[in-house]
Amino acid sequence: MIETTTSIRVRYCETDQMGTFYNARALDWFEVGRTELLRSTGVPYAEAEMRGIMLPLVQAHLNFTGRAKYDDKLLITTTVQIEGKASLRFDCRICHEYSGRPVADGYTVHAITDTAGKPTRPPKWLMELLGK
Amino acid sequence: MIETTTSIRVRYCETDQMGTFYNARALDWFEVGRTELLRSTGVPYAEAEMRGIMLPLVQAHLNFTGRAKYDDKLLITTTVQIEGKASLRFDCRICHEYSGRPVADGYTVHAITDTAGKPTRPPKWLMELLGK
Amino acid sequence: MIETTTSIRVRYCETDQMGTFYNARALDWFEVGRTELLRSTGVPYAEAEMRGIMLPLVQAHLNFTGRAKYDDKLLITTTVQIEGKASLRFDCRICHEYSGRPVADGYTVHAITDTAGKPTRPPKWLMELLGK
Amino acid sequence: MIETTTSIRVRYCETDQMGTFYNARALDWFEVGRTELLRSTGVPYAEAEMRGIMLPLVQAHLNFTGRAKYDDKLLITTTVQIEGKASLRFDCRICHEYSGRPVADGYTVHAITDTAGKPTRPPKWLMELLGK
Repeated sequence: MIETTTSIRVRYCETDQMGTFYNARALDWFEVGRTELLRSTGVPYAEAEMRGIMLPLVQAHLNFTGRAKYDDKLLITTTVQIEGKASLRFDCRICHEYSGRPVADGYTVHAITDTAGKPTRPPKWLMELLGK
Repeated sequence: MIETTTSIRVRYCETDQMGTFYNARALDWFEVGRTELLRSTGVPYAEAEMRGIMLPLVQAHLNFTGRAKYDDKLLITTTVQIEGKASLRFDCRICHEYSGRPVADGYTVHAITDTAGKPTRPPKWLMELLGK
Repeated sequence: MIETTTSIRVRYCETDQMGTFYNARALDWFEVGRTELLRSTGVPYAEAEMRGIMLPLVQAHLNFTGRAKYDDKLLITTTVQIEGKASLRFDCRICHEYSGRPVADGYTVHAITDTAGKPTRPPKWLMELLGK
Repeated sequence: MIETTTSIRVRYCETDQMGTFYNARALDWFEVGRTELLRSTGVPYAEAEMRGIMLPLVQAHLNFTGRAKYDDKLLITTTVQIEGKASLRFDCRICHEYSGRPVADGYTVHAITDTAGKPTRPPKWLMELLGK
């Protein structure tokens, strides 16, 4: 299974008046995780789109397990698997880089579509990238 | 059960290069729904915070069921219920105002805490607001 | 001169850990002002794009003149004028609805381009909308 | 004069339906530049806040000079200077890492305040950091 870990810092614009990150920012960070995972396969998502494959989100689940403040360094660990005939599922776990304390985890499910948004079976190159 | 419906327009800043809204924006819109639901009870969330009650998100689930473009008018329908001893669950459904076509639905679960973030049982005024 | 005023509420996701709105949100609100101004002319921006006219930002200036908290009701007042041969300038002023206290003001300058991004003279319908 | 350069990638959530980054995101990126500049002085902004100094934005100016797509690698170059008695001015220039093509530039002016928001002269440690 492909697993990648990438590091970010919490931006001031990602905090809210509770003093931790605003909840929706976790979905932005999940995206950073997916981007780096796909890059590690050799086909960045931007190139997948150029090859005619899009991965629109159809479902997301998030658990908020801890706080993170401005400028905290976080690790995003992401894995991916094919789900059903025309979906990908990315699992994501975010924790503090130094302490390992958890921040958020969850998953996103993506349709595999052509550029017109029509669901399509994963092309051969995508199956091979994902080790199938 | 309390149910409120509120209306928004998709902002340009909420779109992405797929030409629909960026997924995390749905969580922002769920927040608009919660804000208007709480206002309708007579105790806006800003006042709840002043009374010492915070509602940090602990879980969120989203289904993306349709597209929405810049300037589309959307309806956000929200309900709330007490879950367990110290949690609230808001269910949210977003659709196009004119056609009724679905855009997204899901729920968020919130801890009920004091301003220090310690879980607390819902105070009497909150129970009464929620009709318990 | 065309001038429109529209009203918004500060969203929780627009606050930051200083307890006021995050600075970049003011640019989102300027956009809301432009959208409503253009709607008032009878040609919403979404329709202008369908007619082949885009208005990418080329310059923005912002003065931050006061605080605004979550759920505060703000008024956005916007005016527009043609600048040079192929530009529009929108001036924007944001204040608290009840007290009138200022929050932010500034302007944005937009190129008038075709959908390929090439600068173009304002078409006749746009000139007429703007009262020229 | 202190000058730092830091590198980011454009996130999907930062694009809009024009296919380039949404204009307000440039202010987020200016913030990344300021954060890294202050870190390079030995006193990260998070620590400055702990020492009782805040730097709320009072003015921002942006020129949008080029496009940037999802996943493009950008360089943010930032400098800082003291302006008047109780202000800092950060100048910022964003360009594509590989081609050097410009994306945006501008500046932000920040009041120097205590944690209550009251303007204050820059403390000695801040003057020394900035080489005065």
